[in-house]
Amino acid sequence: MASGGFKTRHLAVVGLGLMGGSLALALRQHADKITGIELNAVSREYALDNKIVDAATDDLKAGVSEADTVILAAPVQMIRTMIERRIGSYLRSNTLLIDIGGTKHDICEAMGKLPVGIHAIGGHPMTGKEISGVQGSDGSLYKGRPFVLCPTRRTTPATRLRALELVAALEAIPFEMEADRHDHLVAAISHIPYLLSSALVATVAKEGEVDPTVWELAAGGFRDMSRLAGQDVQMMGDVVSTNTQAVATLLALFRMQLAMLEAMLISRDDQKLADFLKPAREARINWYQKYENGYKNGK
Amino acid sequence: MASGGFKTRHLAVVGLGLMGGSLALALRQHADKITGIELNAVSREYALDNKIVDAATDDLKAGVSEADTVILAAPVQMIRTMIERRIGSYLRSNTLLIDIGGTKHDICEAMGKLPVGIHAIGGHPMTGKEISGVQGSDGSLYKGRPFVLCPTRRTTPATRLRALELVAALEAIPFEMEADRHDHLVAAISHIPYLLSSALVATVAKEGEVDPTVWELAAGGFRDMSRLAGQDVQMMGDVVSTNTQAVATLLALFRMQLAMLEAMLISRDDQKLADFLKPAREARINWYQKYENGYKNGK
Repeated sequence: MASGGFKTRHLAVVGLGLMGGSLALALRQHADKITGIELNAVSREYALDNKIVDAATDDLKAGVSEADTVILAAPVQMIRTMIERRIGSYLRSNTLLIDIGGTKHDICEAMGKLPVGIHAIGGHPMTGKEISGVQGSDGSLYKGRPFVLCPTRRTTPATRLRALELVAALEAIPFEMEADRHDHLVAAISHIPYLLSSALVATVAKEGEVDPTVWELAAGGFRDMSRLAGQDVQMMGDVVSTNTQAVATLLALFRMQLAMLEAMLISRDDQKLADFLKPAREARINWYQKYENGYKNGK
Repeated sequence: MASGGFKTRHLAVVGLGLMGGSLALALRQHADKITGIELNAVSREYALDNKIVDAATDDLKAGVSEADTVILAAPVQMIRTMIERRIGSYLRSNTLLIDIGGTKHDICEAMGKLPVGIHAIGGHPMTGKEISGVQGSDGSLYKGRPFVLCPTRRTTPATRLRALELVAALEAIPFEMEADRHDHLVAAISHIPYLLSSALVATVAKEGEVDPTVWELAAGGFRDMSRLAGQDVQMMGDVVSTNTQAVATLLALFRMQLAMLEAMLISRDDQKLADFLKPAREARINWYQKYENGYKNGK
């Protein structure tokens, strides 16, 4: 066990996918014991064989009832259901409960109704990989990446400090904010991009019905703009459908920007068009530089 | 000089950027002499020093008047201006004139008014690189990538065959089609994606004015979706503003797809949402597989 910083006697990770497996690996030196709770037998087997966890079970109650730290690493709707229906009665008092769901309002609200004595706080790490599944687990997945923490009615000052230590153990960068603010920000940088990507692919597919050559000409620009549309539909559908208000607000803002661009094009106002495109280009270049050199490495 | 296939006595490449420099490198073994025409002295110097061209000049007339093959590798509006205003009177009869501009209607129309005896055909290679400038020149840039050829009123059967030989010399995949069809297809896979990317960055920038943390949380999804917004504004502004009709048509189609997605979200119709997202996901995955394994390698 590492000296100082985050320590836990018994860590339970609910959901052994890419995110959960990577959390277990990253917290290996900080936990005396790690139990994985997972319905999929193949994933359990893999996590055990590769020493990602010390024990594995498909029984939520048995898996979490002895833990002093529980991380919910499942899809958003499933996290919410676990919190609302069962997990409160399984947990010991003084347990730290944190999740990594992509939207925070519903989850944090549900956490606020847990029994007093549960240290519950919402979490959302801004990281991932192309592949999914526990087989891709990577102990450095969270390193240098933002990890948002959202307070709930069950977040005491001690909860907050333990969560910050956990984030530090992952070598992630903590961002503390209210759930609604989080949901608004991720609508802009994650949910709208996903919807745009899916709508773009649907548009090209419509074209493809008339003229299939469109697929053969598509190159690197389309590749990047369509990547998000290839993500898991259950996971992303969950995320956007639990954030409809923020998504609708940001979509309205996006439509305004696109309408302005279109008006400039149709009116053939090249100067206005350049005046729109140039600051967008500069903003992207500035951000990318910081992302590559700073944000991404935790500077 | 390679035996068989494309041969030229004197190739003139107008515009020594990434695309023009790469063309010169790829056609090195097929040309007795290559002249680069470029206003920027640093680019000329670089191309000469690195034996990308045999001669370089900033004088269009001097550069093209002895050539039997001329490739216009400049931004769209500049290509059009060169064709409309000057180049017809500089070229020898029987010269093959081809361009690589990103929209084809205006250019092909202008080519159609060149003196009889000029072998003019529109071209558009679907390739590129992150970087621009002659310093990034790469003889394999066109290899395995689509190269669209669009006929003009100055395209004879002989013109077409010479152009196809040129494309074969680049090891690119020829796609022959009318200019309008090309412009419609690239609106879907290239111009709309660029506008979406720019409008997305503008949307996040608006959010950033209120809450700058949005930039710090942005991760891989935003990185991919914003990349195109970082492209050269002059080049892309030129491209979209010379293709307004097709862009407006495709934007209307895109807006319909996005509106459908939004309606499903707001009405919380998770089944319909999944029914929309799943085929988009499958279309993307199918395309990507073909792009990586087939289209990209000319299979």
